[in-house]
Amino acid sequence: MTNTQVKLAARPVGNPQQSDFTIEEAPMPTPNDGEVLIKTQYISLDPAMRGWMNEGKSYIAPIKIGVVFRAGTAGKVVESRNPDFSVGDYVTGGWGVQQFGISNGKDLVKVDTNVAPLTTYLATLGMPGMTAYFGILNTGMPKEGETVVVSGASGAVGSVVGQIAKIKGCKVVGIAGDQEKCDYCVNELGFDACINYKTEDVRKALRTACPEGIDVYFDNVGGDILDIVLGQIRLRARIVICGAISQYNNTEPVKGPSNYLSLLVNRARMEGIVVFDNAANYGKAAMEMAGWIQEGKLHSKVHIEKGIHNFLPTLMMLFSGKNFGKLILEVE
Amino acid sequence: MTNTQVKLAARPVGNPQQSDFTIEEAPMPTPNDGEVLIKTQYISLDPAMRGWMNEGKSYIAPIKIGVVFRAGTAGKVVESRNPDFSVGDYVTGGWGVQQFGISNGKDLVKVDTNVAPLTTYLATLGMPGMTAYFGILNTGMPKEGETVVVSGASGAVGSVVGQIAKIKGCKVVGIAGDQEKCDYCVNELGFDACINYKTEDVRKALRTACPEGIDVYFDNVGGDILDIVLGQIRLRARIVICGAISQYNNTEPVKGPSNYLSLLVNRARMEGIVVFDNAANYGKAAMEMAGWIQEGKLHSKVHIEKGIHNFLPTLMMLFSGKNFGKLILEVE
Repeated sequence: MTNTQVKLAARPVGNPQQSDFTIEEAPMPTPNDGEVLIKTQYISLDPAMRGWMNEGKSYIAPIKIGVVFRAGTAGKVVESRNPDFSVGDYVTGGWGVQQFGISNGKDLVKVDTNVAPLTTYLATLGMPGMTAYFGILNTGMPKEGETVVVSGASGAVGSVVGQIAKIKGCKVVGIAGDQEKCDYCVNELGFDACINYKTEDVRKALRTACPEGIDVYFDNVGGDILDIVLGQIRLRARIVICGAISQYNNTEPVKGPSNYLSLLVNRARMEGIVVFDNAANYGKAAMEMAGWIQEGKLHSKVHIEKGIHNFLPTLMMLFSGKNFGKLILEVE
Repeated sequence: MTNTQVKLAARPVGNPQQSDFTIEEAPMPTPNDGEVLIKTQYISLDPAMRGWMNEGKSYIAPIKIGVVFRAGTAGKVVESRNPDFSVGDYVTGGWGVQQFGISNGKDLVKVDTNVAPLTTYLATLGMPGMTAYFGILNTGMPKEGETVVVSGASGAVGSVVGQIAKIKGCKVVGIAGDQEKCDYCVNELGFDACINYKTEDVRKALRTACPEGIDVYFDNVGGDILDIVLGQIRLRARIVICGAISQYNNTEPVKGPSNYLSLLVNRARMEGIVVFDNAANYGKAAMEMAGWIQEGKLHSKVHIEKGIHNFLPTLMMLFSGKNFGKLILEVE
């Protein structure tokens, strides 16, 4: 038996290519004293992964060439030499894009699949959910009655942002790139409106959906949409910079927001967030979100693709918008 | 006797031209009951004036075509039909670019020229000083030991920002466009360093001056310098957007900060300010700043040009950087 691993072979320029990766059959790892062996069931695919492929200072070190690609993971303990874990335990962690992982347990979280399916712990109760929760509440600071706009609205982060803003009594307008996604946001997630940026004039549609302007914008996409929103913010608006998926595969410089002086005119604020800063409070947030899930106030959709060999083409679905819901790779 | 007035005749495209203004001889105004007649002595010339010439929603209504050009003003009461003012009182207000103003007194502030020269009430103890005070303290929030960078460093706002940051125990690095201005910031205002952006490689010079990165950036200029600073901010940096003088006469779209994702990487914040929001606290701020002036901790330089007919060429000195210190037009 071997352990299939996906490694970064070269730093991509623009869109990552298959040649930027290697898929290797490593020997099956064996746990030492204090360690566990985990069989990977699900691998989280996230837009942030594109940034991790680049050299240079960021909020986290770049993935090194020739090592297993970093990823959030969920799986089952298949061998344990650590008293805190038993064979059969479900755990989440970050052992990367490989069939089997070894851990000393310190970076593992035991999860209860009776409370929620294992995939939920990579989605709403995992990093994307935490990103949404802390980003919208601590940085967006939405007040009842305010208008909140979120891009990537049907995605793993955006869908949670919008639903939390609804829970807080806000008007919520999503922006997504597909009519089915927009319909889902309005009909199943309870957004007040959702704009299809591929078929609608976003500037006009936003004016119609937010006639009094925008108080909070949670940005997952950057680019032109950020500029359009900046042109429609209200006094003391908060712009949460969570990501800029439209810019990640650029070979040209990132498009800066030409309308940034709207921050001055409106005494508004644009602030970046990184989920890891909230690690100490993940547990509390997960409990509150699990409650919302049980009350039927927080829905989520998971998009599962299969096969560790499909890592790259599956990841690229995020950038073409072909996934619908939190994108997860199932390891067979 | 007539009252010379400068009015906006057309909305400038790019650099304002003399043909965008008219200079008129209006009849001498006479105060009604409750009003005073003021002889203008000094007119404040500010970069913000360029924005006021443009159509469109901003933090203040555009200056209307055919009316006296808006400006901060200082002068002497020459006739009073208001019991709160006597002939000979020195006042500041906003009666615009004209030789004489009429006011009901509500928008006038009586000032004591024994405490500070009349020009200081248009500079450090006027709008530029208030902008600096509230912008750096409330939005920049500098902590002792932090590194503060300010552009337009020798200007009416920048020079006060830097000195207040020094008072608060920060390391202060200025950016200005002239060696004489830089020397002034370091030798007379006590900045730790000042970079001449016209002769130095700003990126390198900033790295040398701020080896640990930048905690607070007070931006008066926008453009490339904003981008360079964004590339060198520290965790949880605060960028105060006060202005963008490099962009005001653009005929092309404003240059957005291409490095804005540094806000994400560094969990940093970019926030716009408008001085008027602090009107309720001007008095308290002026008292504290007057104290600093008396203690020799807060210096200022005034650049005076003469003649109301020279309004436009004098204003344009701000955009070429030809003024050195707070630019004021003396009305003869």
